[in-house]
Amino acid sequence: MTVITLMTDFGIKDGTVGVMKGVIWGISPSAQIADLSHMIQAQNIREASYILGRSVTYFPKGSIHVVVVDPGVGTKRRPMAAQVGDWFYVGPDNGTISGLLERAELSGWQTQFVELNRIKYWLPSVSFVFHGRDIFSPVAAHLANGVPLSEFGSPFTDPVRLELPKPQRIDSGWRGEVTHIDHFGNVSSNVRVEHLGEALEKKENIAVCLNGTEIHGMVNTFGERGAGEVIALIGSTGNLGISVVNGNAAAKLGVKIGDEIMVMLR
Amino acid sequence: MTVITLMTDFGIKDGTVGVMKGVIWGISPSAQIADLSHMIQAQNIREASYILGRSVTYFPKGSIHVVVVDPGVGTKRRPMAAQVGDWFYVGPDNGTISGLLERAELSGWQTQFVELNRIKYWLPSVSFVFHGRDIFSPVAAHLANGVPLSEFGSPFTDPVRLELPKPQRIDSGWRGEVTHIDHFGNVSSNVRVEHLGEALEKKENIAVCLNGTEIHGMVNTFGERGAGEVIALIGSTGNLGISVVNGNAAAKLGVKIGDEIMVMLR
Amino acid sequence: MTVITLMTDFGIKDGTVGVMKGVIWGISPSAQIADLSHMIQAQNIREASYILGRSVTYFPKGSIHVVVVDPGVGTKRRPMAAQVGDWFYVGPDNGTISGLLERAELSGWQTQFVELNRIKYWLPSVSFVFHGRDIFSPVAAHLANGVPLSEFGSPFTDPVRLELPKPQRIDSGWRGEVTHIDHFGNVSSNVRVEHLGEALEKKENIAVCLNGTEIHGMVNTFGERGAGEVIALIGSTGNLGISVVNGNAAAKLGVKIGDEIMVMLR
Repeated sequence: MTVITLMTDFGIKDGTVGVMKGVIWGISPSAQIADLSHMIQAQNIREASYILGRSVTYFPKGSIHVVVVDPGVGTKRRPMAAQVGDWFYVGPDNGTISGLLERAELSGWQTQFVELNRIKYWLPSVSFVFHGRDIFSPVAAHLANGVPLSEFGSPFTDPVRLELPKPQRIDSGWRGEVTHIDHFGNVSSNVRVEHLGEALEKKENIAVCLNGTEIHGMVNTFGERGAGEVIALIGSTGNLGISVVNGNAAAKLGVKIGDEIMVMLR
Repeated sequence: MTVITLMTDFGIKDGTVGVMKGVIWGISPSAQIADLSHMIQAQNIREASYILGRSVTYFPKGSIHVVVVDPGVGTKRRPMAAQVGDWFYVGPDNGTISGLLERAELSGWQTQFVELNRIKYWLPSVSFVFHGRDIFSPVAAHLANGVPLSEFGSPFTDPVRLELPKPQRIDSGWRGEVTHIDHFGNVSSNVRVEHLGEALEKKENIAVCLNGTEIHGMVNTFGERGAGEVIALIGSTGNLGISVVNGNAAAKLGVKIGDEIMVMLR
Repeated sequence: MTVITLMTDFGIKDGTVGVMKGVIWGISPSAQIADLSHMIQAQNIREASYILGRSVTYFPKGSIHVVVVDPGVGTKRRPMAAQVGDWFYVGPDNGTISGLLERAELSGWQTQFVELNRIKYWLPSVSFVFHGRDIFSPVAAHLANGVPLSEFGSPFTDPVRLELPKPQRIDSGWRGEVTHIDHFGNVSSNVRVEHLGEALEKKENIAVCLNGTEIHGMVNTFGERGAGEVIALIGSTGNLGISVVNGNAAAKLGVKIGDEIMVMLR
């Protein structure tokens, strides 16, 4: 009962995600399939990479993550499968795997990459425009059935990597940027708990500045402040975030991805 | 193959719901997981309570309902698990269970509540802000594996209850209020089939008034009237509702949750 | 582990789809359930029919497709189950099955239809307004358990058919119309690969005209043109489509369902 997750920018109205599940279950009838997200912004590889990187460790070892945010479908971009630590990635070699590889480097995980080219593991007929259905879903299903990674194609070592923005150490603390805005309007940054380190033991001494709003002191959770207050806190995957209690921080502060976030340590 | 349902206000774009499934399947690999809703309005405990209460009996006995609408996450609000009749609830003790307990009282079901405090059933590391992932999902998965409810924590008997509005008997009939507006714009109220009783045998004698629109006579179903007509009928879970045939009653009549609805019996 | 798919116009916020899964798993605990779409436009039988028709062959033989777009629920429209080729349909007899039957005729599949009237396969209590829960889900679950189709009701041979628009052969090529607009704004038409035939071997000689925009030459996939360019290509299910590379063709060209699309062959 291997777990397979699906993440795409396909949305949920056209039946395309359901069709991928049909293909998978036709090959691997007992696979457990979870939707990770199908609301990735169209062609936003960076967003998919971010969500995959922060989610992967919560899945059982051996889980297979199919990600199809694939503006280059049908062109020369490589279709790939990879093992990253105890998990698998199946999808285009277009940088989507970057967040996962960043995680791998931090944790010392082994990696292995193959270019998919054994068509016996694909659907008999492959369209130019829907490799999620015709290549990636059947490969994931065969992986779930125990076919070894090396069977699916030719090994390679240079997957496409996104240049993910890294926070910079400055005199007064850290300069980072906004990397995600969630459903609630909570803002996440690339400044992580590891960057702040011991400073987090005195949260009241940390100040965070975003789009002209300065927040003095960090909190652990929402309920420590009143409704409508802007707070800074460490999110559930270790990233520094800005929220509004029972509100929408991104809307209130006019935040967009890439906005600068300053952390001042005293 | 225990059924576990998930209901949250997390939306569907951030991967957070998928991560909860990963945690569950890591502990209980054969669990069948259904999404109940992830589009609960942010922090709207009352809405989650309503949907849970009306849905629960359609799930197999032993099903486990995880509900995470949790503005108090990380504060002193109790994490809880409960048995209510033949079903289980896992989530914060913040009133979400109220609709289910109302159902239990009507039906004479037994109830049992425990405050979750045995951390061996949680993820090894618990964040301040995502107990859905770190506490409630693993507890649900262990419950699905057959761990008895009493193992998860300390019993208590006073769960937080919402004051759910009850309809009032008046001379001419009943005064109720709008409790839900669905995807189609169908309006539901807290006036139920049990309140109307024998009067429903003469549907043509019942009048319903909402936001200045008076509807004379009730119908059984949509197709009894023409497109665009406003109708009153008993919805699929026994609540009196107002709809527009092939249209949106909430939009047409400007309805919002809490609006008064009058039922006149003759 | 029979696959059951669900397609409705119920949306995803009210818990109604989850309840259908609860009913199914109560009867057939190991069924694999995939959501095909719950964002069908309200009462849009044609859209559901289109998505079902193009999706069905990607599911394992024996899969059961429950479709509930059902404006006539509770009236005299027949509830039905059908076998079409190697797949099953369960839902109202209101034309939803048309796309599937068109497929059956092209492929020479056998068909068999029954009007559902054996209430022992339904929930004990049947509402007037939610047959998806009370009739179609339990019937699908019993089908998954191996109950023969003929057990569920009385055979009939005249299912309701939509008049699906067919493209017309004209002197210069084909006149078709827009049949679907997907999540990305990609436009699909009823002109199919079978209509264009050998002309597709010289894609550069084909011109496509939609809403005043003329596209000279077809391409195989998105990456062959630059961002923002309007392209014509064969979509993943064999239909001629119009897209904008990394953009939204429906928005850019002001397209709506039913708009004329002209294909000029030279």
